[in-house]
Amino acid sequence: MRAEDDMHLTAHEYTIALPAWIDDELADVPDVIPDLEDRMRLVHRLADRNWREGNGGPFAALVAESGTGRIVSVGVNVVLATGVSSGHAEVTALGLAQRAVGGWDLGAADQPDHELVVNWRPCVQCYGATLWSGVRTLVVAGSGPELERITTFDEGPMREDWAARFEARGIRVVDGILRNEALEVFQTYRDAVDAGGVDVYNARRG
Amino acid sequence: MRAEDDMHLTAHEYTIALPAWIDDELADVPDVIPDLEDRMRLVHRLADRNWREGNGGPFAALVAESGTGRIVSVGVNVVLATGVSSGHAEVTALGLAQRAVGGWDLGAADQPDHELVVNWRPCVQCYGATLWSGVRTLVVAGSGPELERITTFDEGPMREDWAARFEARGIRVVDGILRNEALEVFQTYRDAVDAGGVDVYNARRG
Repeated sequence: MRAEDDMHLTAHEYTIALPAWIDDELADVPDVIPDLEDRMRLVHRLADRNWREGNGGPFAALVAESGTGRIVSVGVNVVLATGVSSGHAEVTALGLAQRAVGGWDLGAADQPDHELVVNWRPCVQCYGATLWSGVRTLVVAGSGPELERITTFDEGPMREDWAARFEARGIRVVDGILRNEALEVFQTYRDAVDAGGVDVYNARRG
Repeated sequence: MRAEDDMHLTAHEYTIALPAWIDDELADVPDVIPDLEDRMRLVHRLADRNWREGNGGPFAALVAESGTGRIVSVGVNVVLATGVSSGHAEVTALGLAQRAVGGWDLGAADQPDHELVVNWRPCVQCYGATLWSGVRTLVVAGSGPELERITTFDEGPMREDWAARFEARGIRVVDGILRNEALEVFQTYRDAVDAGGVDVYNARRG
């Protein structure tokens, strides 16, 4: 017999889900996007819509097969929508890609090479999430302090040699794909925040 | 009309769920555990059972209200069970705690102070996940290289000043709670791996 004060966990599971508008946004997007810039263009489009929909920050990601450009998954920041602070675009895209391929290791021997495409250098959490995911390439639009300066989001204490540490683990880093377009998304978001009316969230600050 | 080659996402969501044995393991555990060492003792117990159940690595965590010791959530490494590489014990416990309290910020103004209790210093991913979760305290059994040496798990490129960066963001770090007991769990796991018969996984290595 259980005592009154025995533990009754309120939550046994949580779900990270794409917002409903994703299918609408992807309706005219082909399964295979051979050009890397075009893949980043899709990421920017999703990032821009994401904050407008009140789903979270202006961040998006996708996982593709590097060789063909076949899109395996997309992700957006769903922190506000799911109420789970780890639900960044990269974590979402990587988890969905792993669900799609049926296992936790996107770099398994029977897998084609996978890449993660993101609209800026990942925060410290997603840096680690990328390391453990099995992707062989990280593609970012940019990696400088502009993201934090424009959006005011805290990206956490990253190591200066973050890219070298990726490379040391066999993950190639491609930087500077449609960089200006990324900054335009961030600036548009920031302008909207300054004008009021955007449901802003942010994590703990220093 | 959709073209044949338009995108059809295979996965729209994924779920991070506690294993079925958790309720059994917690059957005799009270909702409130006032003593911090007793809270860590529970974490060690869950970590030890987790690898034996084939669920993932020998890692567990819980979120508690610091003031009372009321347990809000528990988490174990569910990478193997869920097929999602970000499903570490800390990410699981933090996500479930946020589900339990109904929001992404465990440090929100209307919340009591929350702590994350883990059986070793988090990896770089969970370092970030802890930063963004809103917990005010991180309690670890230890933080040295022993974990990587004994278990062979890669914890990623952490900054040397990781603890100071936590403190700078208002997160207190308590280290060394039931340290030897943590090492015993790791060593027992390692011995079982060396003896064969444990379904070992590991992420990309340097």
